[in-house]
Order: sequence, then C-alpha cells, then structure tokens
Amino acid sequence: MRSCRGEPVDRPPVWLMRQAGRYLPEYRAARAGVSFLDACRDVERAVEISLQPLRLVGTEAVILFSDIFVPVLGMGVDLDFRPGPVIAKPLRTLEDVEAISVPDPQESVPYVFAILRRLRAELEAEAVPLLGFAGAPFTLAAYLVEGKGSKDFGALKRMMYREPAVLRALLERLEEMTVGYLNAQIDAGAQAVQLFDTWAGLLGPADYVEWILPSHQTIARRLARDRAPLILYVNGGGHVLDPMIESGADVLSLDWRVDLAAAARHIGRRASVQGNLDPCALAAPPERIAAWVRELAAGGRAARGHVLNLGHGCLPETPVEGVRAFTAAARALA
Amino acid sequence: MRSCRGEPVDRPPVWLMRQAGRYLPEYRAARAGVSFLDACRDVERAVEISLQPLRLVGTEAVILFSDIFVPVLGMGVDLDFRPGPVIAKPLRTLEDVEAISVPDPQESVPYVFAILRRLRAELEAEAVPLLGFAGAPFTLAAYLVEGKGSKDFGALKRMMYREPAVLRALLERLEEMTVGYLNAQIDAGAQAVQLFDTWAGLLGPADYVEWILPSHQTIARRLARDRAPLILYVNGGGHVLDPMIESGADVLSLDWRVDLAAAARHIGRRASVQGNLDPCALAAPPERIAAWVRELAAGGRAARGHVLNLGHGCLPETPVEGVRAFTAAARALA
Repeated sequence: MRSCRGEPVDRPPVWLMRQAGRYLPEYRAARAGVSFLDACRDVERAVEISLQPLRLVGTEAVILFSDIFVPVLGMGVDLDFRPGPVIAKPLRTLEDVEAISVPDPQESVPYVFAILRRLRAELEAEAVPLLGFAGAPFTLAAYLVEGKGSKDFGALKRMMYREPAVLRALLERLEEMTVGYLNAQIDAGAQAVQLFDTWAGLLGPADYVEWILPSHQTIARRLARDRAPLILYVNGGGHVLDPMIESGADVLSLDWRVDLAAAARHIGRRASVQGNLDPCALAAPPERIAAWVRELAAGGRAARGHVLNLGHGCLPETPVEGVRAFTAAARALA
Repeated sequence: MRSCRGEPVDRPPVWLMRQAGRYLPEYRAARAGVSFLDACRDVERAVEISLQPLRLVGTEAVILFSDIFVPVLGMGVDLDFRPGPVIAKPLRTLEDVEAISVPDPQESVPYVFAILRRLRAELEAEAVPLLGFAGAPFTLAAYLVEGKGSKDFGALKRMMYREPAVLRALLERLEEMTVGYLNAQIDAGAQAVQLFDTWAGLLGPADYVEWILPSHQTIARRLARDRAPLILYVNGGGHVLDPMIESGADVLSLDWRVDLAAAARHIGRRASVQGNLDPCALAAPPERIAAWVRELAAGGRAARGHVLNLGHGCLPETPVEGVRAFTAAARALA
C-alpha cells in the first residue's frame, strides 16, 4: 500500500497478475467439475481460490478471484464463458447499446462483495492487502462489439471509425458501470483496485488519447482513491506511457515489453510503477529469475514507488517453482 | 526506390502490406478452388495475383505473392497451411534442429524466382519497382518451435530461457537460409526486399537485443544491399526502435501503434521509414483517410525518406474503396 502511494519502503512488495489460476494444481482441484462462472459466484470457493497464492507461492497481496466480465452479467447482454467471454448477439447499433442497462452491482453481483468482505476479514489480522479489479470500458466494449476475442478487433475499429457515436454511448455506459462497481468493491473492503485495459494497446497514440484516456480519467476522478489507490494496466501499452501518466492513476502497471528502468525514470514522482517480468520468463532457472527481480527492483527505484509483478498474467503452463523463485527473490531483497 | 535510399523525391510513394489478398474479389476469384500453397507454386497465377493491386487499387510497387513459410518447404520440416502454417512435429530438441537442412533455394523453391523474373519483365517498361520478402529467422523459429500460431509463444520462450543453445542453432540455420533466399530473390529481379519479423515484438528490449538484433544485423550485412535496399518490419516493435535502427536496414517499417512523426524525428538521417496507418482505419470515410495520409506524409519528412504504407497487412474485411482512398490520397500529395 505504501509503494502504491509513493511512501518510503524497505523493498518493493510482490504479487502476480493471475496469481490464482490454472498453473496451480490446487486451483485445478478447487475448480474440478465447476464451471468458471459458478466458481466466481460461489463465495466459499472463490475465497479459497483467492487465498491459495498467499499460502502456496508466497505473494504479499491477495486479489479477488473473478473475471472482468462478471459485472457485465447484469447488463442485459447474452454472455457466456467458453472459456473466454462469448457474446451471443454482439452490440453493433445504437439500439443495441441503448438496450443495455447499468444495474446496481449490489443487486446484480452481490457475491463479489461477499467474497471481498470475507477476504478482508481473513486478511485483516495478517495485514495482507486486498485488491479488487475491473476491466476497463474499452476492453469490455471490444468484446461486446466483436462478440469474442480477436486478433485485430476489426468490428470494434469499424465502429470507431464509422459510427463513433455508437461506441461513445457504449463506453459511457461501461464507464458508469465500472465506477459504481469499483467503488462498491472499495466499500466491501478492497484496499487498492486494478483497472485492466487489455486491448487499449491496440490503438495508436492519437486514437488512444481520443478513446481511452478520457475514460481512464473519468474513472480515476470518480473513484474513492483516498481509500484505495488505482492501478492501471495497459497490455502492450509501451507506446502510450505519457497518456497513462495523464490518467491520474496512482500506479502504472507496465507490460513486460517496456524497459521498466527507463519508464520509471520518465515517470519519476508522477506515479508508482508495477511490474514487469515476462510471465514466460518464469520458466527460466531460479537464479536467473532472482537476477531479473534484483534488476527490476533497482530500475523501479527511479519512480516514486514500485510493486513487483509480472508484465502480464501467469499462464497455465507457468511452472509453480518459477513463481516461488520470483516471490522468494522479492522477499530476499535488501 | 529513391525514398528507400534517402534520395530526394517529390512525395512519398505508396504500397500496402498484403495488398494482394483476400480483401480483393479478383484475388478470391484467382484463388477459387486452389489451395494457398498451390497458388504460391503456380507461376502464372502468382504473377497475376501479384499484379492485381497495381491495376485494381493503384499501388506504386508490386510485391511477390508468396508466404514467409514457402522457403521452409525444402528444409525437411513437415509443414502444412490450414490456412496458417502448422508444423506436424514442432522442433524441440537439438536433434530436431540438426535434422533440418538449408537447401539451395533455386532447387527447393525454383518457382519463386520464376515468378520474380516474370514480374520484373512485366514491370520493367512501367518502371514499377518489384519487392521480394522473407520472414525473419525469429518469426520462422517461433512457428517451428510452437508448431502453430500462438498468443504467448510459451514453448518458444521456454526454449529461449531453458535451452538457449537449441534456439541459437535453429536461428543460425534460418539465418543462413534467409540470406541465401533473399539474395536469390535479388538475383531474380527483386529491387528491394522486406524482412517480416512478426513475432519479434513479443520480446522485451533486453531479449530483443540478445535474440533478434544480431540476426537482423547478419542478414543486413550479407545481403546484396547495393542492388536492393532492405526494409525491416517488426510488428509491435514500438519499444525497440533503437535496436531496429542498429540493424543496418535501409528502411524501418513501423507498426501502426508507433507515432510516425516522432519516430521519424528520432531516426533522422539514419534510415528511411515506412508506414504506418492502422489497416482497420481503411474502414473510415475517404476524406478522413486522405487527412491521415497527409498527416503521415508530413511526419515522415523528418526521416531521410518515407514510403507510405499500412502499419500491418490488409485484412480480409478491408474495404477496397478504403484502399483506393489511401493510394489516391498518396498520389494527390503535392
């Protein structure tokens, strides 16, 4: 928490994006015979899964087990997980967009807040921070317009270039939803929240400033950041570091392709940084992982604060011993 | 050609990556009932397809119709196109790598050079430049190790971090093949050659300098560049512009996510630039496309030369009228 806010610390703390997940045998056991969505809705199970990395791999924060599409479930969109999100009727017209609603998250996804409250109660004694998260409006819109994941998101970009008013209307609804959803997470005990913009990096700098930045700024402004700092992750966002700084987020979570030391120097006192080892690098020998951790920690000192993390989420094939080597090296930092 | 070499021109010339392809009804007609690989091997058909964009959409250069995996066909790898390249037995061990050979391209893929000779003869009178191309060793290796396309290329990176000697041996063989293949294209009439490193952008800057740069430098050094300038394209390479400059390539082809004006200023007299409109932006209204072309042309002036192009290949859903608007706007530049 101090690193997020830029206060003095002895060493950077460590957690990993997707730290609870398919690379852990214990996670696979907890998920056996249960659909992904059911696991997100089952408070006991989601609490267990969220806590696994704390005990099993030695991370220093816990993040809510859920999915960025969970809060979309109450918006009147026909959404399924197979296992990625699939939208039966992709949103393409203003009518489609106007048909979706922004529900009270306490009513549409009450279990999310029940999970957070339970986790906070569990973690309070150990002073382990609890993180919440949400998908950024553009990333949610990308799937809702495209219907599923895509390499190019051509349908989304066609809407952007041909019917900007439709995309804007969709983003506004998603912004509204995201602000309410993240503030409700903070009310339920999240001590920091991460906004994942997985697809914003698909845009060039000018389009990013037009389409992404205003939405990040709105969220940063309307969030209860006095109670929970905002961490902003943009996948493939090395070319938009300046507008990421302008977002107002407290922590900029950097993709593994960014030179963290150079970025930290550039950011300076304007924000903290998070990251950014390549998740695939956890396949390397432990001593090599430890050397990278020392290098990242040294580079991160130029920013006002640094949270050690990966530059993207753990992969199903990530070796558990690589994750342990990563957290052990962080804890061993002077 | 003058833009590639940094000589004075009235305005930047224009062509498009994947300008011959699925977005053109005439291409789909020429491909009807013919497998992709058969179309690459059929000299008449490949010549016809290569020339289509010159007549149909007004591009100012012709590029050989082929695929980056065509020269791999003679290397003893079990390769199929479905429609992307699929390797029946991915290369994983030193034995696998040592089993592949570097054939004389004149023997393994003679049709490629027949196509180039025919194209050069057709184009000579009109003084339209003919481009050849090849996939960069790392991108070829990515598929050969992974077996197919992938989001993360985890198997490739595991090899990089765990068995670097195996990957190095593979890259050396692919370098050798690529140098011979591109020089044979130049002998057959290619007046410039483009090296496509589609997956190099997956690496962070330090890994890029270790794994990608030496291979680009070797190719640049061993190519007959006095007869044909080298264009280097790195997809998602905004974070590795400096090592791209160090490659020795004559032209740096920039991904659409790069701010071309800023990159051109940074590159200055060290290389020409190529690019870089987002292919999805060709869905926009023609006047908007024309404004982007003018903006790109103005930005490109800071480099020693500029070739107008997309920042990635045309997509199957690219509207033909958008492509025409792009080339028309380039030709209308003062």
